[in-house]
Amino acid sequence: MSLIVQKFGGSSVRDTEHLFNVARIITETYDAGNDVVVVVSAQGDTTDDLIAKAYEITNRPEGREMDALLATGEQISASLLAMAIKKLGYRAISLTGWQAGFLTDSNHNKARIRRVNKERIENELDKKNIVIVTGFQGLNRYDDITTLGRGGSDTSAVALAAVLKANRCQIFTDVTGIYTADPRLVKTAVKLDEITYDEMLELASLGAQVLHNRSVEMAKKYNVKLEVLSSLERVPGTVVKEVCKMEKMLIKGVAKDDNVARISLVGLPDKPGTAFRVFSLMASHKINVDIILQSVGREGTKDITFTVAQKDRAEAVEALEEIAPSLGITKIAADDDITKVSIVGAGMESNPGVAARMFEALGEANINIHMISTSEIKISVLIDKELGEKAVIAIHNAFEV
Amino acid sequence: MSLIVQKFGGSSVRDTEHLFNVARIITETYDAGNDVVVVVSAQGDTTDDLIAKAYEITNRPEGREMDALLATGEQISASLLAMAIKKLGYRAISLTGWQAGFLTDSNHNKARIRRVNKERIENELDKKNIVIVTGFQGLNRYDDITTLGRGGSDTSAVALAAVLKANRCQIFTDVTGIYTADPRLVKTAVKLDEITYDEMLELASLGAQVLHNRSVEMAKKYNVKLEVLSSLERVPGTVVKEVCKMEKMLIKGVAKDDNVARISLVGLPDKPGTAFRVFSLMASHKINVDIILQSVGREGTKDITFTVAQKDRAEAVEALEEIAPSLGITKIAADDDITKVSIVGAGMESNPGVAARMFEALGEANINIHMISTSEIKISVLIDKELGEKAVIAIHNAFEV
Repeated sequence: MSLIVQKFGGSSVRDTEHLFNVARIITETYDAGNDVVVVVSAQGDTTDDLIAKAYEITNRPEGREMDALLATGEQISASLLAMAIKKLGYRAISLTGWQAGFLTDSNHNKARIRRVNKERIENELDKKNIVIVTGFQGLNRYDDITTLGRGGSDTSAVALAAVLKANRCQIFTDVTGIYTADPRLVKTAVKLDEITYDEMLELASLGAQVLHNRSVEMAKKYNVKLEVLSSLERVPGTVVKEVCKMEKMLIKGVAKDDNVARISLVGLPDKPGTAFRVFSLMASHKINVDIILQSVGREGTKDITFTVAQKDRAEAVEALEEIAPSLGITKIAADDDITKVSIVGAGMESNPGVAARMFEALGEANINIHMISTSEIKISVLIDKELGEKAVIAIHNAFEV
Repeated sequence: MSLIVQKFGGSSVRDTEHLFNVARIITETYDAGNDVVVVVSAQGDTTDDLIAKAYEITNRPEGREMDALLATGEQISASLLAMAIKKLGYRAISLTGWQAGFLTDSNHNKARIRRVNKERIENELDKKNIVIVTGFQGLNRYDDITTLGRGGSDTSAVALAAVLKANRCQIFTDVTGIYTADPRLVKTAVKLDEITYDEMLELASLGAQVLHNRSVEMAKKYNVKLEVLSSLERVPGTVVKEVCKMEKMLIKGVAKDDNVARISLVGLPDKPGTAFRVFSLMASHKINVDIILQSVGREGTKDITFTVAQKDRAEAVEALEEIAPSLGITKIAADDDITKVSIVGAGMESNPGVAARMFEALGEANINIHMISTSEIKISVLIDKELGEKAVIAIHNAFEV
């Protein structure tokens, strides 16, 4: 007897037809002899519609009220899905976040799960119910509804899988799994059977946009075996786990992230502590700095260039302009005309030639590299935005992934 | 310092403009030095839309899931209304039925309130918050969401007013109060300043459709002073209470109820127990019998004619046909071509001429009376349906209410 957690996103449950499609996936899993706990997102555009309603009233809706409002989206889809499963002749029950025992901190709109009280869910499983849980939401210690923010339903599913010691956590989306590159871009991209948590984390943060980082981090921490698969095509997906059996593949994927802004500071005095002041300033604004390049400037000065997410660009520049005089910065430049292309693979750790092969491929394609960043399982380069697609294809071909 | 409970129906909060209108009524009450607790229904057609979604999936949605689904409607309007009040610069907080402490039995779709734990609401009032509570819903002892059925939000408001010992419970609708007759029918109908609980109960059950009977019964039981008024026109409404100061008016209103079906049983043996068997059969089917007329038939038989709500007509006839042979009933007839016209007024108890004046008015208007039913404060007559409006006008004129 095994227990499987299945998570379905908003587009998978967007109308009655899709609800019944999902209901059939669930009941087939149940018929195969599994206990099934389902986590469901709000239908289609429901969340966006609710947000629009709030902004019609105020341009600064309070976090607590916003959470009470948004949580209704999943409550609607969960109860409708329970009805669809019952209509197929099975036992099912929907539970809200608080009924399912999700306790979070009080950070409205981006709450963190503190604990999951599994009693109610286990009682319902004992009654042979298929349990439908609203994703994305919980309750804080004041009995107020909270939501988990971006990627929240994935995180709900992984948390449940961890607490219930599920045999597998299946994340259903509208793609059939994780690919070596964006299949719309690279015709030869192939679906991966397996990928490690670390590789998935690097790919997710690099814009692969299938699983949210929070859910992968949690899956890694609690050793939850994740599977990404399609709710429309019934084919095996990609399994995310600690160690992959087959590490023959040097790299697992090529990813492109256009959501990058570059900021350059010119004319800093070349003395200790200046870089520290710049980056502690960014940290105090909660701005994440990615690739950093420090270079020697003219006459005893140095230049610092770094990248941030595009949404943080304006705030970063504004903050830097304030301290520019005291730091001796003579010029601040910022632009978005760049993209980040990365290769990810646990296999590259033991293969020193990987970086060289990547740079060779870019050189042969006449693509200039502005900045480089590496980790044990990742190499990222910053290049001109208009060359991004060309770079992904060239690299993918070079590794024949 | 007084505490006022205000209830707003779905049409009063149907969009952003109406939400702000309601928010202004609330904040003006707050500014006048009152604690304010608000009970709100789902916006406009939200509940109907949710019901339609459920019936798209199944023609027999389970009560528990239906309640989880429908409860979202009030959660949406409550959080939006809290946002609107905050936008006006006031402190406000929305609470769901379970957050507000509404505990009910487990009769899904038509639950009864068992208890209201007022701690949370009182804490929020202590913090100077305007408290917005979702109407129509509560929690049973299994921690499942329940809804109260028809007129549920009015009942929620009255229950809160009782528990919180509110000075007044204001029910805002789209009419300005209770009228002596339907103003669309009778041009000379006037708005009542006051009406007793009993009068209101008779009027509500007679089709006046402003307040639901359950809420009036509860208001009477806990002596909650109710006021019915308009959310659009800022004029005093009608106060419903135990005793009215001014009992000069002989009758308080003339009401017409078209939702009546007449069933006639012919040829019953004239012996004890036959009427009992007929009406215990109706009771076992939970069919409410209203006016009853028993008359002598031919050759030692009797006829029984009675009225039921139109929705119960088919079930009543079917049940009666089954026992007809054993009771000796020779014919069962049923029709809807009738209407019930009633006058209500606590003043008629001490004025024996009221019934005579009513019958005289009907006689002068050439309207034949089929059946009569009276209580201490009500007289109802059954007449042909097409004469209903004429009867209401004639009676209203006769009493010059």
